Amino acid sequence: MTARFIKKTSEKTGLVPGTLIHIGERKTDEVKITIIDYDENQYEEREVKEVEECYKYKDKPSVTWININGLHDVNVIEKVGKHFDLHPLLLEDVVNTTQRPKLEDYGNYLFIVLKMLSYNEEENRIEAEQISLVLSSGIVISFQENGGDVFNSVRERIRKTKGRIRKVGADYLAYALMDAIVDNYFIILEKIGEQIEDLEQELVSNPSEKTLYAIHVLKREMIFLRKSVWPLREVVSALERGESPLIHESTITYLRDLYDHTIQVIDTVETFRDMVSGMLDIYLSSIGNRMNEIMKVLTMIATIFIPLTFIVGIYGMNFEYMPELGKKWGYPSVLLLMLIVGCIMVIYFRRKRWL
Amino acid sequence: MTARFIKKTSEKTGLVPGTLIHIGERKTDEVKITIIDYDENQYEEREVKEVEECYKYKDKPSVTWININGLHDVNVIEKVGKHFDLHPLLLEDVVNTTQRPKLEDYGNYLFIVLKMLSYNEEENRIEAEQISLVLSSGIVISFQENGGDVFNSVRERIRKTKGRIRKVGADYLAYALMDAIVDNYFIILEKIGEQIEDLEQELVSNPSEKTLYAIHVLKREMIFLRKSVWPLREVVSALERGESPLIHESTITYLRDLYDHTIQVIDTVETFRDMVSGMLDIYLSSIGNRMNEIMKVLTMIATIFIPLTFIVGIYGMNFEYMPELGKKWGYPSVLLLMLIVGCIMVIYFRRKRWL
Amino acid sequence: MTARFIKKTSEKTGLVPGTLIHIGERKTDEVKITIIDYDENQYEEREVKEVEECYKYKDKPSVTWININGLHDVNVIEKVGKHFDLHPLLLEDVVNTTQRPKLEDYGNYLFIVLKMLSYNEEENRIEAEQISLVLSSGIVISFQENGGDVFNSVRERIRKTKGRIRKVGADYLAYALMDAIVDNYFIILEKIGEQIEDLEQELVSNPSEKTLYAIHVLKREMIFLRKSVWPLREVVSALERGESPLIHESTITYLRDLYDHTIQVIDTVETFRDMVSGMLDIYLSSIGNRMNEIMKVLTMIATIFIPLTFIVGIYGMNFEYMPELGKKWGYPSVLLLMLIVGCIMVIYFRRKRWL
Amino acid sequence: MTARFIKKTSEKTGLVPGTLIHIGERKTDEVKITIIDYDENQYEEREVKEVEECYKYKDKPSVTWININGLHDVNVIEKVGKHFDLHPLLLEDVVNTTQRPKLEDYGNYLFIVLKMLSYNEEENRIEAEQISLVLSSGIVISFQENGGDVFNSVRERIRKTKGRIRKVGADYLAYALMDAIVDNYFIILEKIGEQIEDLEQELVSNPSEKTLYAIHVLKREMIFLRKSVWPLREVVSALERGESPLIHESTITYLRDLYDHTIQVIDTVETFRDMVSGMLDIYLSSIGNRMNEIMKVLTMIATIFIPLTFIVGIYGMNFEYMPELGKKWGYPSVLLLMLIVGCIMVIYFRRKRWL
Amino acid sequence: MTARFIKKTSEKTGLVPGTLIHIGERKTDEVKITIIDYDENQYEEREVKEVEECYKYKDKPSVTWININGLHDVNVIEKVGKHFDLHPLLLEDVVNTTQRPKLEDYGNYLFIVLKMLSYNEEENRIEAEQISLVLSSGIVISFQENGGDVFNSVRERIRKTKGRIRKVGADYLAYALMDAIVDNYFIILEKIGEQIEDLEQELVSNPSEKTLYAIHVLKREMIFLRKSVWPLREVVSALERGESPLIHESTITYLRDLYDHTIQVIDTVETFRDMVSGMLDIYLSSIGNRMNEIMKVLTMIATIFIPLTFIVGIYGMNFEYMPELGKKWGYPSVLLLMLIVGCIMVIYFRRKRWL
Repeated sequence: MTARFIKKTSEKTGLVPGTLIHIGERKTDEVKITIIDYDENQYEEREVKEVEECYKYKDKPSVTWININGLHDVNVIEKVGKHFDLHPLLLEDVVNTTQRPKLEDYGNYLFIVLKMLSYNEEENRIEAEQISLVLSSGIVISFQENGGDVFNSVRERIRKTKGRIRKVGADYLAYALMDAIVDNYFIILEKIGEQIEDLEQELVSNPSEKTLYAIHVLKREMIFLRKSVWPLREVVSALERGESPLIHESTITYLRDLYDHTIQVIDTVETFRDMVSGMLDIYLSSIGNRMNEIMKVLTMIATIFIPLTFIVGIYGMNFEYMPELGKKWGYPSVLLLMLIVGCIMVIYFRRKRWL
Repeated sequence: MTARFIKKTSEKTGLVPGTLIHIGERKTDEVKITIIDYDENQYEEREVKEVEECYKYKDKPSVTWININGLHDVNVIEKVGKHFDLHPLLLEDVVNTTQRPKLEDYGNYLFIVLKMLSYNEEENRIEAEQISLVLSSGIVISFQENGGDVFNSVRERIRKTKGRIRKVGADYLAYALMDAIVDNYFIILEKIGEQIEDLEQELVSNPSEKTLYAIHVLKREMIFLRKSVWPLREVVSALERGESPLIHESTITYLRDLYDHTIQVIDTVETFRDMVSGMLDIYLSSIGNRMNEIMKVLTMIATIFIPLTFIVGIYGMNFEYMPELGKKWGYPSVLLLMLIVGCIMVIYFRRKRWL
Repeated sequence: MTARFIKKTSEKTGLVPGTLIHIGERKTDEVKITIIDYDENQYEEREVKEVEECYKYKDKPSVTWININGLHDVNVIEKVGKHFDLHPLLLEDVVNTTQRPKLEDYGNYLFIVLKMLSYNEEENRIEAEQISLVLSSGIVISFQENGGDVFNSVRERIRKTKGRIRKVGADYLAYALMDAIVDNYFIILEKIGEQIEDLEQELVSNPSEKTLYAIHVLKREMIFLRKSVWPLREVVSALERGESPLIHESTITYLRDLYDHTIQVIDTVETFRDMVSGMLDIYLSSIGNRMNEIMKVLTMIATIFIPLTFIVGIYGMNFEYMPELGKKWGYPSVLLLMLIVGCIMVIYFRRKRWL
Repeated sequence: MTARFIKKTSEKTGLVPGTLIHIGERKTDEVKITIIDYDENQYEEREVKEVEECYKYKDKPSVTWININGLHDVNVIEKVGKHFDLHPLLLEDVVNTTQRPKLEDYGNYLFIVLKMLSYNEEENRIEAEQISLVLSSGIVISFQENGGDVFNSVRERIRKTKGRIRKVGADYLAYALMDAIVDNYFIILEKIGEQIEDLEQELVSNPSEKTLYAIHVLKREMIFLRKSVWPLREVVSALERGESPLIHESTITYLRDLYDHTIQVIDTVETFRDMVSGMLDIYLSSIGNRMNEIMKVLTMIATIFIPLTFIVGIYGMNFEYMPELGKKWGYPSVLLLMLIVGCIMVIYFRRKRWL
Repeated sequence: MTARFIKKTSEKTGLVPGTLIHIGERKTDEVKITIIDYDENQYEEREVKEVEECYKYKDKPSVTWININGLHDVNVIEKVGKHFDLHPLLLEDVVNTTQRPKLEDYGNYLFIVLKMLSYNEEENRIEAEQISLVLSSGIVISFQENGGDVFNSVRERIRKTKGRIRKVGADYLAYALMDAIVDNYFIILEKIGEQIEDLEQELVSNPSEKTLYAIHVLKREMIFLRKSVWPLREVVSALERGESPLIHESTITYLRDLYDHTIQVIDTVETFRDMVSGMLDIYLSSIGNRMNEIMKVLTMIATIFIPLTFIVGIYGMNFEYMPELGKKWGYPSVLLLMLIVGCIMVIYFRRKRWL
């Protein structure tokens, strides 16, 4: 369970900083490299086998997007790094999937780490995949662990010349990729929203220990979500402040929009947290109430019958001289007495609003 | 229940940023466009069918207020946007009613998103409607989802030349609209204040599980309220700092006043939150106390009768040689004994302050 | 109960900003205007009937203190405002007694809103009265709702030429008035301190549901107190920073002293809050403990007698062949058996430290 | 109990700011004035009777430390104030022992208020004494309420020419005094640390209601401690920033060291707070657990015997036609039946892990 | 238990600041001094007996790393301090192992205090060792209490000319040492992560009072961890800001990487804290639930049998005239009646979902 929160990194201890060791699950079999190169007029898309094929795009004036899918083959990463002159520590962060979202400005390129979230329906939990972006002048390199289809919409837009994307530079492309990731968060949030709603229904209709457990699972998912989402805010905010010359003026409005989305995501996560802990309170107090009600009724039944049992006990005594025992009216009048005593107790409890 | 907190936005995922898709309920049947154009001397008010009729007001020196009621027809929004040269992302935010209150400075116009709150008496909850304002030089464009009567007072003042409004510019008009919205919050707060008072009465006189549920509903309304109100503070504070040339010096005093009102709203919301969680504490401890009292009394009754039942049990035994059974004074003296035992127990419990 | 936290302001909704409407209770019958005019050498004090009589003091070089007692007559306020050239929004805040403490710098005058607290012994709660000060060059105008005797000490000092007050300007007078108000807070704090002490005694000696309620009332008073006290800090701190030319260098030391007092008040309020919530914890756990003790003893009594009752039940059975019944030693040995069983149970419970 | 948190200050209400009234307990009989005057070469120490004897040290080039012990005689304070030209508000703060730790820069002298803590073993609580320091060029004046022996180590070092103290100026002396006070805090912290340890032992071995009360007392001591310690941080930090020309460059390193100690004290206080509230949680849950265990066992005993009592009740009925009653094997087989029923219940409870 | 949080420092009270007294456990027998001197071309490693042997490395152009292992011999520390011109307060901090992590800039050298953590498997708790670094131009001096093998990897890299380390200056060496320490934290975190996982398993399968205690122990370890980790952040952040000329531009990228690791450590600690308190909540509510379930079932058994016992009691009465007693069908019909009553109760309880 804690695996999502801390991955095995101890094997890295004592190594030279900058040593490339893939930390995380191996989520794909082979490394897939896709290159999309475009400007306003032309468009080229190809999947390459050897990393060396990327090299020629380095100095082209068009925008080039190199997508590397699968991080376990550190050789590929290393070659890319060497050719595009990336810092060893950057490469180390790319293959170590335990990073928090962050932005690092290396002068002539920006390094952005993000978390792609997906909902694992089977294990009923959110999973995170690390996505690293390198934005250099005219080039965006993206590194994915597995590479679901989250970037497909961006590809589609480039192919179909939809929107601004073909007319503007690599910074807009980087924005578009980040936007695709953040857009995806809303789907996760909706799913969690539905779960909260279901749990609320359950809470009102039929709360059980299972409900309690579900609430706690949800609470933990929230902790996980926050961890991915909060640092994102600083990342986008730093980009939007526009201190890097790699970000053009016109892209900043879009980054501001992205920032708004990020805030909205955070806001929703916090609201959900409040709602979930409110649900926990409701659960605990209503379970407590219900149990109290049961105990009250049961105790009351016992309380009514115990004095009656005492009375019948009296006339079960074997004294020789108990005048009532010989009387004809003895038995019915004791029955009547008990009826009266019982009724008085019921009335008393009702008046006290205990029943 | 969570619908208010997160609206279906997943259908937007993967679309080009700036695509206009109306997100939210469709709250009105047709789009209604009203134009009010005035300066100190003249005044004109008309409802137009076609959005194109607004165009001529663009460069008039008088103040023009274009109110667009109903956001589901994105064509109208798009036309307005094109003519008045509004950024596509702005238009996207106008039709996406999941925005948080915010202020965006696009240079030659300001974009303000606010939340109009109303109390839905039937479903017993607060509802929010998104209102967007565009303040350009001499022009205010307001977009409403449904457009209740919250702006009527402003219209009335313009019509009747009441107050400063006719003498000053579009920035004051924008202020007046925002002020009308914030004024409206106080009505919501009063309603909640009354509910809190009612619940408190109920808490003292007759707390039940219904009370608990009502407290939790109130708590959730508070979460919702905070979400709308807190970001407002930054919006007004940013306006009041007066960094935009669109805001005149003289309007800033009024914005400061608006800021004060905003702070007062936030303050009251926070106070209410404290009060509601205090009520929850009282409820829980008083319910607990009451239940304990009941259990105590019931257990005490059982405790008094159990030893007595034991005594009568003794003389119900069928031993042949039980000397007491043959004695004339046997029965009455056992009755007396039980009376004494009962009294001693009651006295003991009283002395211990258990009764 | 919530009336103190939110006053009826809905009647103001939709009015032109700057419209004077008195919001709050009418605490005095007629408006009383007192003028004190002094410099180092002369001193004049008079009560005037008509507000116009204040006008002549406007440009005198001496320090003039105009005190207006009673806010329900908006005409008076309006006249003062017009003559001394006060902003309509300022006047609106003066008569709307729902303001938070605040400082506003209108350039040639400062506007300060404060809360005067008093302890209502009958209803056992703190009450607040709004006091507004306008500090202009050579003039202080104070507006009070009811005007208790809190300013009497200042008046006395002016009359008797005590202290610096006659030698220095209007800013010192404004300081002196604020100081009088804050000094008064300490009396409230002492009263609350005493209540906390009483409650603590009660908590140790004889906690009851009444104690719980008293703790909650105290907690609410704390919420109210905080609301009045926290914003005060910003007010005094802003004054002390001395950005306004109306505040002389020599007064700033005094304002710093006032600031210290404010911090001390806030500090004490926070400490009290901590103490009160500590008391709540003690109460809940000691009540819980006590109830548990009672239930334990009662259940133990039942537990001891139930097996004994079972034994006597056995010998109450009517089987024809129960050899023990016919034996002479039957009855006494059963009695002995029960005595032994009872003793064993008591000893067992004692050893387990349950008794 | 609250006396430590708020002292009687209401008698000051309404007085002229700067009026000297001693607020606090009178902790010593007579005012004792000690003068230590030294430079690298000479050293003089004397106790004076009249405050006037201090006057001649005012302009000597050597460092002079005037220690005034006992604050109830405001005349002495006033004379000192007048001669050394101290602000009346400063003197007011010296005699009013309710100050928070603070630093005030009066231009040609600094005013520092600190709290000396001591542990009152009898009443089992921390007590605070106010110590005020005035640092002027070449002169340090210290005011103590009672003057324990906390400054003796400093005196000793001056006498014995140990360390830097004789070679450097008055600012180092002021540092040395503050350092002595903060060093003393560690003793208090150790004492509290021991108490926490004792309570933890008690918590594991034999928790009782006394333990609960001790935890709460400790919690309150923590509140008190924080109140004295937190503001200290700002004081030392402000000094260390070295904005006053009275503080020499070389002393700043020492002040930084003092700052570190202050942070360490705060850190420990916060850690203790966390530990104490953890202890409270343990206490409550373990007491609750224990009580539950007892109730469970008792209820189980009752539950086993109630059905058995029912069975014996059946054969105690007086019906004429109850075939079992006449059978020889009736009695033993009923006994056997009950044994079986009892065993089944015990086994069932064990299997359910209830026993 | 508190010993880790506050060590005996009272013996230091009253001493001259800068006096060297070793505070902490004596963790090694004799002081071991190792010198590693290297540049790109040559490498020398030796263990010296006398501290004086270090002196000749002071002005060599190569990088020199002096590691001092064991702090109890203050003479050694003092000699080093004198020769390398270190401030007495710095030396005092080196031997006083109660320091928080901190960075101090003494102009021509930096002083860094860190905490090395190790997991004591026997006592099941984290232990901290203080490590102090002095970074001067071309020289790094490290002071360790015991000196585990945490620095071995760095030594190895120097020996084997691996990585950048031999080509760059002393600042990179200092970075490498700090990096080794922080890397080590991840091992601790993993261990705690495993414990959390184990406890979670236990929580689901078989929660007991032992689980509760383990949770609390974990909670306290968290407090300890935080205390060591949080200040680290400021230390690294201050270094990374690169204000000291001792830190070269090229090292700053590495320090930024170190900063990221520190943030990751803090993040994980905070996540663990959230998880542990979530576990506490689960524990308490599930224990409560279980106990409630037991009590409910037991009470229900009692409740079913008490009315039945009452019925048999009726027919155990000895009245002469009880017509049912003489009837043949009396006994079986009473048995039937009781069966029906019992069944009705069971059905009723089931329908109410109490069973």
